Amino acid sequence: MLELLSHDDVTEIRLNRPPVNALNPALVRELSDTIARQTAEGARALVLSGRPGLFSAGLDVPELLDLDEEGMRSFWKDLFGLLERIAASPVPIVTALTGHSPAGGTVIALYADYRIQAEGDFRLGLNEVQVGLVVPPVIHQALVRLIGPYAAERHLVAGEMIPASRALEIGLIDEIVPAEQVVEKAVAWCRRHLALPRRAMQTTRALCRADLVGSFEDGKALDVDGFVRGWFSDETQATMRALVERLKKNA
Amino acid sequence: MLELLSHDDVTEIRLNRPPVNALNPALVRELSDTIARQTAEGARALVLSGRPGLFSAGLDVPELLDLDEEGMRSFWKDLFGLLERIAASPVPIVTALTGHSPAGGTVIALYADYRIQAEGDFRLGLNEVQVGLVVPPVIHQALVRLIGPYAAERHLVAGEMIPASRALEIGLIDEIVPAEQVVEKAVAWCRRHLALPRRAMQTTRALCRADLVGSFEDGKALDVDGFVRGWFSDETQATMRALVERLKKNA
Amino acid sequence: MLELLSHDDVTEIRLNRPPVNALNPALVRELSDTIARQTAEGARALVLSGRPGLFSAGLDVPELLDLDEEGMRSFWKDLFGLLERIAASPVPIVTALTGHSPAGGTVIALYADYRIQAEGDFRLGLNEVQVGLVVPPVIHQALVRLIGPYAAERHLVAGEMIPASRALEIGLIDEIVPAEQVVEKAVAWCRRHLALPRRAMQTTRALCRADLVGSFEDGKALDVDGFVRGWFSDETQATMRALVERLKKNA
Repeated sequence: MLELLSHDDVTEIRLNRPPVNALNPALVRELSDTIARQTAEGARALVLSGRPGLFSAGLDVPELLDLDEEGMRSFWKDLFGLLERIAASPVPIVTALTGHSPAGGTVIALYADYRIQAEGDFRLGLNEVQVGLVVPPVIHQALVRLIGPYAAERHLVAGEMIPASRALEIGLIDEIVPAEQVVEKAVAWCRRHLALPRRAMQTTRALCRADLVGSFEDGKALDVDGFVRGWFSDETQATMRALVERLKKNA
Repeated sequence: MLELLSHDDVTEIRLNRPPVNALNPALVRELSDTIARQTAEGARALVLSGRPGLFSAGLDVPELLDLDEEGMRSFWKDLFGLLERIAASPVPIVTALTGHSPAGGTVIALYADYRIQAEGDFRLGLNEVQVGLVVPPVIHQALVRLIGPYAAERHLVAGEMIPASRALEIGLIDEIVPAEQVVEKAVAWCRRHLALPRRAMQTTRALCRADLVGSFEDGKALDVDGFVRGWFSDETQATMRALVERLKKNA
Repeated sequence: MLELLSHDDVTEIRLNRPPVNALNPALVRELSDTIARQTAEGARALVLSGRPGLFSAGLDVPELLDLDEEGMRSFWKDLFGLLERIAASPVPIVTALTGHSPAGGTVIALYADYRIQAEGDFRLGLNEVQVGLVVPPVIHQALVRLIGPYAAERHLVAGEMIPASRALEIGLIDEIVPAEQVVEKAVAWCRRHLALPRRAMQTTRALCRADLVGSFEDGKALDVDGFVRGWFSDETQATMRALVERLKKNA
C-alpha cells in the first residue's frame, strides 16, 4: 500500500492503494507506522505523495460502513494517531499532492509542514458536510490555523470541494507546480530547510508548531464519541450509503 | 419598524424605520424578538435587509442622548442580547447590506453568517472612535475573528468608514452584487446551505461559531459599565452633541 | 547614538549608531530610556527612524559575542524591556523603516503601531534561524498577531530575509513609500490619529493592543533562560563566529 523512494536523506512515502488511495484501517496504520519507522531510522525529512492524478480520495467509505461501533472507534483513534504523528514529526514533512485530494486527503495535508499541489483540474477541500459528516474540533482547529477562523467556517459549513487555484488563494495549499515536478519541488523544499543551522531550525519549528501538536492533548477536541455517534446517525448512514450506491453505478 | 417577506422557507426581515433605520431601544428589542419568533416558528434561514441605499445608519444618537444612565445601560444590554441572538441563531442568518451601513449597522453584520453588500458608492465600518465611542471587547473580538487582530487594530483605532470595495478586500464583507440582486443572492446563499445534509451542516456550523457565541459568556468582554461610563464622559457627550447639531443643520 | 527631531507634538527618534545601527547593550538601553522620557515629557506620538538605506542591521553580534552568560542575560532582559515599552507605549509609535531592517530591526518594528518602509532594494525579516538563533515565544506571538500562525511558521522556520515588496504582501509592513517621504508619512499617520477624539482613540488602542502587551507578563513566553542557553550552544556560537569572520573580510 506504500512505496518508499529514497532521495538521499529525504524519504518519499508514496500512497499506492489502488484504485484511489482510500484511507482504510490498514492504510492508516501502515502510514503511521512507516512515518515513525522512517524518522527513527534517520530520514531527515519526509515527502508524502500519491498516484498521478490522485493523492487520496479520503476515507474508504464502503469498507468503513461495514465496521461496528467498536471498529469505527478504533479506526478513528488510529486516524488521530496518524495526524498527531504528522503534526509532531521530529523532521519536516511535505505533502506532494499529486492530484485530487478531497476530505481525508486534505486532512492529512493540513498537518504537514508544507503543501505542494500538482497543476491540473484537481479539487480538494474538507467536503465532509456534503457526505453527512462533521469534522472533529481538532481538525477544525488545524484548518483555522492555516486559513483563519472565518474562512474555515465558510469552507467547512459549505462542505466545499474547491479547485486547486481557489485552495491556493485561501491558503489551504502553498504552491501549484507542474504535475511532473511536484515531488521534486517537495524534495527541494526539504533540502533548503535541511541546509539551515539544525538546532535553530528544529527548535523554531517546534515552537511554531506547538499549538498544532498541543491540540491533540485535549480529549474534547478529539471528541471520538461525538464522531462515532454522528457516523451511526440515520442522516449520515443514509447519505453515505447513497454515495456508495452512486459510486458502484459509475464503476 | 420591520417588514417580513417570505421567500419560501427563508424569511427576510427588512429594517424599515425611516429615515435611516437608526437603532433605538424599540427597534433593537423588536428585531431581537422577531428573530427569536421567526426561528421558533420554523424559518429555516433568515435574511436581514434594509432600505434601498441604506441598511442602517447605526445607533440613534439623538434619541439615545436623552436616556439617563439606567436607560443607557438597559439599551446596551438589549443590544448585546440582539447580537448574541444573531451569533447563536439555530439557523443561518445572512445580512443583505442594501446600502450604507456604518457603526451599529456594521456591528449587526459582524454576527451574521454571511455579508452581501449592494454595489454602489456605499460606506461601512466601525467608525465609533470618530464619534468619541469605544467598541466593547466583545465586538472587538468579533471583528478580530473576521479580519484578524492587526487589521482589526488599524480599523478600530482609526474609526474608519471605508468604501465597500475596501471592506471586501479586508474581509469585512463577503460579496458585492448589483443592488437589485442583494436580497435574492442572500436567499440563494441560504438555499444552497439548506440543501446540505441538515444535521451535518448544523453541527458543523455550531462548531465553527462556538467561539463567537462563547464571547458573550464573559462579562468582562461585554463591559457594560465601561461603555456606559464612556458614553457619559465629557469628550463623548461633546462629540456626539456636536454631531447631532451638524445633522440637524444638514436636515 | 540617537538624534531627536521635533515635528511639533510628534517626536522623531533617529537611530544613529554608525555604521549600521547595530543593537548593542548601550543602544538598547538608551532607546528604551528615550522613549520613556519623551512620552513622559509630553510627546503625543513617536516616530522611530534610522539612517538613509538602513533602519538597523539587528543585534551587534561581534560585541555581544564578548559578553559572558550574565552579560547576555542582562542584555536580553533589556531588549525585552525595550520591546514591552514600545508595545505598551501610551502614545502611538510608528517605525519609519528607512532602509534594510533585518532580524532585530524587524523585531523592533513588530511592536510599533505601524510600519512604513522606504522604497528601494531593501530587505527585512526574522532571519534568526540563518544565524543559528531561535526567536523567543514572545516574538513569535507578535509575528503571529501580525501575519497569522501559518505564515509566521513558514517565515521563522526558513529564517527568511525578504524584499520589502514581499513583506508588504504578507503583512509584515503596512506601506512602501519613496525613501525621502518615509518620515513625513509616518508623522502624517500620527497626526491623523491625534486628530481623533482622544479618550476614544487611546482607549480603543489599549483594547486592541492588550494581547500584545499581555504577552510580556508570561515568563515562559520570554524564556530568557532558553535564549541564553541557545546563544552559548556550540552550533550557534560557531555560526555567529563564522558570520563575524565573513563580515570582517568584507569590511
